[in-house]
Amino acid sequence: MHPYSPPLDDMEFVLFDVLDAEAEWSGMRAFAEVDKALALAVLAEGGKLAANTMAPLYPSSDAEGAHWTNGEVQAPSGFRDAFRELAGGGWFGVAGNPEYAGQGLPKMLTVPLEEMFWSANSSLYLYGALTVGAAVCIDTHGDEELKRTVLPKLYGGEWTAAMALTEAHAGTDLGMIRTRAAPAADGTFEITGTKIFITSGDHDLADNIVHLVLAKLPDAPAGSRGISLFLVPKFLADGTRNTFGSASIEHKMGIRGSATSVITYEAAVGHLVGGPNGGLANMFTMMNHARLAVGIQGLGLGELALQSSTAYARERLQGRSATGPKNPQGEADSILVHPDVRRMLLTQRAFTEGGRAFAAYVGLMLDRAKYADSTEEREAAQGAVDLLTPVVKAFVTDRGMEGALLAQQVYGGHGYIVEHGVEQIVRDARIAQIYEGTNGIQALDFTARKVLRDGGRALQGLVADMRVARVHGEFSAPLDEAFDAITATTQSLLAGSAQDPDMPGAVSVDFLELVGLGVYAWLWARMAEIDTPGEGGRSKVEVARFFYAKLLPKVFALQRTIAAGSTSVMALPEERF
Amino acid sequence: MHPYSPPLDDMEFVLFDVLDAEAEWSGMRAFAEVDKALALAVLAEGGKLAANTMAPLYPSSDAEGAHWTNGEVQAPSGFRDAFRELAGGGWFGVAGNPEYAGQGLPKMLTVPLEEMFWSANSSLYLYGALTVGAAVCIDTHGDEELKRTVLPKLYGGEWTAAMALTEAHAGTDLGMIRTRAAPAADGTFEITGTKIFITSGDHDLADNIVHLVLAKLPDAPAGSRGISLFLVPKFLADGTRNTFGSASIEHKMGIRGSATSVITYEAAVGHLVGGPNGGLANMFTMMNHARLAVGIQGLGLGELALQSSTAYARERLQGRSATGPKNPQGEADSILVHPDVRRMLLTQRAFTEGGRAFAAYVGLMLDRAKYADSTEEREAAQGAVDLLTPVVKAFVTDRGMEGALLAQQVYGGHGYIVEHGVEQIVRDARIAQIYEGTNGIQALDFTARKVLRDGGRALQGLVADMRVARVHGEFSAPLDEAFDAITATTQSLLAGSAQDPDMPGAVSVDFLELVGLGVYAWLWARMAEIDTPGEGGRSKVEVARFFYAKLLPKVFALQRTIAAGSTSVMALPEERF
Repeated sequence: MHPYSPPLDDMEFVLFDVLDAEAEWSGMRAFAEVDKALALAVLAEGGKLAANTMAPLYPSSDAEGAHWTNGEVQAPSGFRDAFRELAGGGWFGVAGNPEYAGQGLPKMLTVPLEEMFWSANSSLYLYGALTVGAAVCIDTHGDEELKRTVLPKLYGGEWTAAMALTEAHAGTDLGMIRTRAAPAADGTFEITGTKIFITSGDHDLADNIVHLVLAKLPDAPAGSRGISLFLVPKFLADGTRNTFGSASIEHKMGIRGSATSVITYEAAVGHLVGGPNGGLANMFTMMNHARLAVGIQGLGLGELALQSSTAYARERLQGRSATGPKNPQGEADSILVHPDVRRMLLTQRAFTEGGRAFAAYVGLMLDRAKYADSTEEREAAQGAVDLLTPVVKAFVTDRGMEGALLAQQVYGGHGYIVEHGVEQIVRDARIAQIYEGTNGIQALDFTARKVLRDGGRALQGLVADMRVARVHGEFSAPLDEAFDAITATTQSLLAGSAQDPDMPGAVSVDFLELVGLGVYAWLWARMAEIDTPGEGGRSKVEVARFFYAKLLPKVFALQRTIAAGSTSVMALPEERF
Repeated sequence: MHPYSPPLDDMEFVLFDVLDAEAEWSGMRAFAEVDKALALAVLAEGGKLAANTMAPLYPSSDAEGAHWTNGEVQAPSGFRDAFRELAGGGWFGVAGNPEYAGQGLPKMLTVPLEEMFWSANSSLYLYGALTVGAAVCIDTHGDEELKRTVLPKLYGGEWTAAMALTEAHAGTDLGMIRTRAAPAADGTFEITGTKIFITSGDHDLADNIVHLVLAKLPDAPAGSRGISLFLVPKFLADGTRNTFGSASIEHKMGIRGSATSVITYEAAVGHLVGGPNGGLANMFTMMNHARLAVGIQGLGLGELALQSSTAYARERLQGRSATGPKNPQGEADSILVHPDVRRMLLTQRAFTEGGRAFAAYVGLMLDRAKYADSTEEREAAQGAVDLLTPVVKAFVTDRGMEGALLAQQVYGGHGYIVEHGVEQIVRDARIAQIYEGTNGIQALDFTARKVLRDGGRALQGLVADMRVARVHGEFSAPLDEAFDAITATTQSLLAGSAQDPDMPGAVSVDFLELVGLGVYAWLWARMAEIDTPGEGGRSKVEVARFFYAKLLPKVFALQRTIAAGSTSVMALPEERF
């Protein structure tokens, strides 16, 4: 296993050169005391923790997995100490509300931090990632007492959190859930039902675990309008164990160090979070946080795969360059001389560095949405966040998986055996395309709810904003072409969907990919504008050229497949599948 | 795990309707006694064995894996009995040379047989697949005594075979191997060296295991022209155990029931196969057989994934159709109402059924190359085999992996847990893109050796042949467009490569994919021509429409990325990776 090395230098470039973080922060009162030196120090510390504490447990935690011992769910060896270091260092409260012991630092700064934690050990970080998301949800929808009691514990990682949505028969379609909440005399509720796929639902890393559970109140309206959100702690205030438990943990393809539980609630004590029947909307606060986080997981695993395969390609000697030996004293040249190996590495790099800029950009929008001075600015930024969250979740995780597979391919047969660790990255990267709403669901959310519902205005606004930014001259024409493709496709999608209800679902995955490519094209043209080609530069111009030559042309296929609409997709009757 | 069901009906369609097997066989003297009834009976028997004997061991053999016990390599439980049934039924000798106890049936018939065996249990069939390939190699290059001794044992599966090429430092670049062969007084050779990644190199399923080993004779020329091929049996004629052993077996991402050994030869007794220093060319007989077989593995796993995800989609109720409930009495509609689920299933189906036709077509070319009456016909067919072998290996296995990933995505979270079996298909399908020469190496072989070396003549000949076949009218224009893209790209590739030695490697993966899509487009247009749309048909017209609307348009992207050549790929100096 190649050791993980935090890409601090590229993170600094993205935050301070590409996104001008200092100017942004100086314009927000909340970040009056945040400057570049502080931010870089935080990143450096986080990087050390990732590389020195978390990453060394990556292979062993996969081999051991989370497991049952004496009726308790145990995380893999070493996780307890590492988690205490992560929690004790305050890393779950970095962007937390300062009124409740959070550190109040910018979200844009937590994005690269999260990336490093995901790169270093996705299974380990998963115990914390949902904790941060739950804190955001409670901070937004909880009452004062709940915030005071719970937030400091979550920010400090003494407690962790889980989200309990899915039931065996109800995944995407949460309106079908059967878990019930019965009001008790003391104002609490008795929660009864069984939830599956509960990440960190039970484990031995924290003193307490709070579950955010979706359940139905008596006489609640049918479907998704009748769902309420409850906080259900493993241990109650008086130290009693609440009446729920982990019936079993799943054996999974990857993220094997993360404990995924089936949880049965038997009249467990729960506290209503937000208003009755408003649970799905409230839970979406956590889900949107988690979607961004999972996108960053895709980025982190893509970076890990890139580092691993680049290191291997440098060392592996095999064959000779087509233009004559490059390592004439050696038995063979490094495989970096082979164009196809370069193609695989450059594809990974273009998507990883593009993804890093994209995720940080959305982090910035989140900061603006919360802290910008004017309502107008805040609303515009929130619009961008709403629009781009499913794109981060789906496009970045798809690229993470693609990158992991390419990295494995660079290794050849050595990539298929457990020893080198790259096959673990593939297995781990795969989950990010599936959980927190499959990428197909993200695409449908993006297309139908985020683009079509407002007549394409938010997307056109984003494209308009991107069009005015200064980009490297040579990319200006192809970038305009990509934007034109997005605009034209959006228009024809609006027209087509009005006639054909199946149109959005039939093209949504392609449409999200088209927009993702367009956004990355913009970011690469921006990065190229800021960097210089050749020696002394960061190779941004060179990688941008590769992106435009080899990856962006997929838009020409996507335009056609989107234009083909739903006809061929819907033609076959159900019984002929 | 959904039970595997042999797709006998579609196989019959491919062989007898699409490829007109009866007419073909009646034109070849070797197959005078083969008719449709016999062929269908063979397929039905093979299907039973696959479904009833091999498939039930699929999940358990993954969980148990091949393993060491008391210093011996053991295949998973149940494999011994199943393998004896497979071997005893003569399934490894179906297309074998009748002079040595083979059955002499057409290769085109073994293609669907192999598909079923790969679908049912790839790890188990792997013990036999290489045995068949080794028999082809020995039949072609071995002397009479070797054939007489070894072939009946291999056809009968009493012995199995392994190919020992790779060393830790020498994978693709076999010129670098260090294994040595020293002549002994009795005409045999002493083989010394260590080979890795030896599939079925040691196991407990057969009485003897013969290794086909690449090694260098004393004073052999440097590089790949100094390699010779040796047959090295585990047990010698007198029953003595030869001096080699399995130093360890690999822990792998998938095909865990297959034993992959590191083998150390310590002056092991070997027999030269073919002439000295002609080993690589001779081994290519086996490798080409194995490449076709591995392509069919991709097909088989794609079919298994398709069956599994289709069954799940039928049963899984979630959400409602965008055009109103389709299962109004139920709590929700089946997910088959959702366009994106259909997209995933139809993509799998288009590639699987297209791949089935493609593999059988290449099987037919192999039969013609061996048994056609005229030299001209035999040479033309051999040209098609040489050209298309890397396309079968790479394009079909890439589609197999794509299909497995899509199937897993159809399952959502249920696809990530071990229980449903689909994640195993993903892990198993992945190897087919890597072993027998990575798909990148296949693309390079195809582009540089099979297309550019003869000035594009073989490929243009194939395109010309395809252009004259009758296809369904509505696909005629887009098919011509795809052929034009192949022709134009070949021309520009020829021109570009003359100037730029890195050009072939920089575009080869895209070029192979372009050709693969073109061939599948032709096969779909052919299949649509033979079938009828709507009720009573086989849905070939409908799936063809999906292929043309949603999958073929990728050629518009590939044309551009190929046209972009090597510049952006080679620009970055090695030290900046």
